[in-house]
Amino acid sequence: MIAEIIAVGSEMLTPFRQDTNSLFLTRQLNELGVVVAFKTVVGDDFDHLVSAARAAIGRSDIILFTGGLGPTEDDLTRECVAAALGVELRRDHEIVTAMYKRFAERRIQMPSNNAKQADVIEGAIVLPNSRGTAPGQYLETEVDGKKRIVMLLPGPPHELEALWHKECEPRLREKLPPAAIVMKVLKTAMLPESAADMRTAPIYKKYPNVETTVLAGQGQVEFHLLAAAPTIDEAQAAVDKLAGELEDELDDAVFSTCGESLEEIVGYYLQMRNLKLAVAESCTGGMVAERITSVAGSSRFFLGGAVVYSNDLKTLFADVPPLMIEAHGAVSKEVALALAENIREICNADIGLGITGIAGPSGGTEEKPVGLVYVAVSDGKRNEVVQRRFPGDRERIRRWASQQALDLLRRMVM
Amino acid sequence: MIAEIIAVGSEMLTPFRQDTNSLFLTRQLNELGVVVAFKTVVGDDFDHLVSAARAAIGRSDIILFTGGLGPTEDDLTRECVAAALGVELRRDHEIVTAMYKRFAERRIQMPSNNAKQADVIEGAIVLPNSRGTAPGQYLETEVDGKKRIVMLLPGPPHELEALWHKECEPRLREKLPPAAIVMKVLKTAMLPESAADMRTAPIYKKYPNVETTVLAGQGQVEFHLLAAAPTIDEAQAAVDKLAGELEDELDDAVFSTCGESLEEIVGYYLQMRNLKLAVAESCTGGMVAERITSVAGSSRFFLGGAVVYSNDLKTLFADVPPLMIEAHGAVSKEVALALAENIREICNADIGLGITGIAGPSGGTEEKPVGLVYVAVSDGKRNEVVQRRFPGDRERIRRWASQQALDLLRRMVM
Repeated sequence: MIAEIIAVGSEMLTPFRQDTNSLFLTRQLNELGVVVAFKTVVGDDFDHLVSAARAAIGRSDIILFTGGLGPTEDDLTRECVAAALGVELRRDHEIVTAMYKRFAERRIQMPSNNAKQADVIEGAIVLPNSRGTAPGQYLETEVDGKKRIVMLLPGPPHELEALWHKECEPRLREKLPPAAIVMKVLKTAMLPESAADMRTAPIYKKYPNVETTVLAGQGQVEFHLLAAAPTIDEAQAAVDKLAGELEDELDDAVFSTCGESLEEIVGYYLQMRNLKLAVAESCTGGMVAERITSVAGSSRFFLGGAVVYSNDLKTLFADVPPLMIEAHGAVSKEVALALAENIREICNADIGLGITGIAGPSGGTEEKPVGLVYVAVSDGKRNEVVQRRFPGDRERIRRWASQQALDLLRRMVM
Repeated sequence: MIAEIIAVGSEMLTPFRQDTNSLFLTRQLNELGVVVAFKTVVGDDFDHLVSAARAAIGRSDIILFTGGLGPTEDDLTRECVAAALGVELRRDHEIVTAMYKRFAERRIQMPSNNAKQADVIEGAIVLPNSRGTAPGQYLETEVDGKKRIVMLLPGPPHELEALWHKECEPRLREKLPPAAIVMKVLKTAMLPESAADMRTAPIYKKYPNVETTVLAGQGQVEFHLLAAAPTIDEAQAAVDKLAGELEDELDDAVFSTCGESLEEIVGYYLQMRNLKLAVAESCTGGMVAERITSVAGSSRFFLGGAVVYSNDLKTLFADVPPLMIEAHGAVSKEVALALAENIREICNADIGLGITGIAGPSGGTEEKPVGLVYVAVSDGKRNEVVQRRFPGDRERIRRWASQQALDLLRRMVM
């Protein structure tokens, strides 16, 4: 049983717009045990859309169309799918009446082209759209002796998602063999991607029944584990066994097993231990504070701090002695530690964090190259400082540095 | 002349990965005057890939495949395109020799499956890949009497982009009628999307020869203008004329006409006027400082500031009187102004910026609801403060607020 997703709309054939509905639909289909074999984007063009629909109906069991269901001349999905299937459209007068009523309630005359949205493919069921005017359609049919399920879905994501859960998922679940799907995501911080894969591939390759996807970003490697089995207990057992082995191997590099972000985990520990945090950032320019405050309720564990971009502000807000900066440079272990210790004390916090580094592209020297970053944390008794040299451009270096800062914090408070 | 892009790789059929190469290729093709009519994603499956290739060869003039050119069993693009065209693969011994040599230099024995990368489709030209081992391929052929250009390109973006500019673009330019394409992007800040479209649609609809795409994000609406004409002067004139009319209509909401970001524009004016900035942020938690310091060289105009998340820090770092907070609340016009004025003075800056608001999801009241934000700027003589009520969730409110702050700054210093 394979599925194909066809996103309709010329705007998705420009350099500016991506189809993103297919990511949602893929996840939904995977959870029902259905694999997506093809994704197509096609513009608002009759011949092109018929061609895409014909190819899909010829090769895939389930075909989902998104978009092109509106009232304008450009909206051609209904017409084209009917043409590809060789069947007629019939106008559903109940839908037309309901539309007239809705416009009348708002005391607006209905533009005549709106009636188009009531055209239904022969044999299709109309799927009410609770969040918009264009209803979806659901059709089970046979083409050249092969069973096909065809769905027409609205393009706006909030309409599509509501309609999917209410109308499509239950219908599809009835047609498919029962499949229990369990997902688990392990997230790790500050593990190099190549090392993460080298250490884990021999483990997850022993589990061909669990689909493992490794995703790597700046300072974060995630393992997405997906298992399908006849019962939920079997699927859960398969995922848990692999997750356990991966956690044993990766140890405390794993910071989350339930989807939480690194900033959420840091916030969770700070709040649990009733600790208040203050930060003093130079090269990250506020990124660590921004990430921490992106968590709702962060005022319970985060006081604030200073963005000490200039040397004067390092002294003014974090009391770093000018002589220290002169002796060791603003980018040094000593300054990072002073930032962490002093911001903690000045703000009357329990934990202080300090960051200084060279984000580039200019400002690097042979001794202190672009990418060099010092991160320090202090709880008044223990001080920790790490020196790192991060790769990439300004944005990547800053992102790596903020990730390192959050990870050092996590290790201090967990 | 229409093009079709086929991205090959099962990882792009999961909920986690998107094909992004097609955005780059679409822009490149558009600039050559070629429209993309279909984009397809297909997995590493022989039958599926042959099916996608056959459909594309049947309907499109230019077909670009990305990915699936590596040495592993999963890499099937060469085989499948040859099968779809009904031609053979021949092993290119020069490429094999070069690969052996490269491995020998690194004193590693070449794994035998690597030779696969030297398989060339009958009639194709080999395109050297300066950044990876898998070469591309370029083929001009005729299928059922119709001319077709087929290209096989590597999947990693940095390999693809280098190879495109060096090998594909010149070949394609030779085959295509000369087309001059000119693009211009107008960016506006703090204009509601619906108002922006209502005011501009009557203007850009008068220019059917310029393709106008309107993109809206949090507090930013962009107009992407694209014109194709036989000469560059004609294309430029068409774009400039429309851009001029749009600028007249939108006036000082337009902050950029050459692609710069809002933070770059603010930095540009600050540096030009030799002004230093300091900020005091509450609800944005460092986002404004982070955006400003994302610009390379921002140390020339940005001193730093404070993230005054708790009320104590508003007093400690920005000298906001506790009585003022008690009288007006931390989220008030008075506190925003005090933050801006005081941070300016304390940091010895020329311009001070203050932000306070309620990002939610909790903390709102009837009088001061979630989304209420005050932004103030001060240059020591003039003070400006705006009150806004932003829609959406925590992340969107913070993003809107930072955009408003940068826009108020821009208006103060431009």
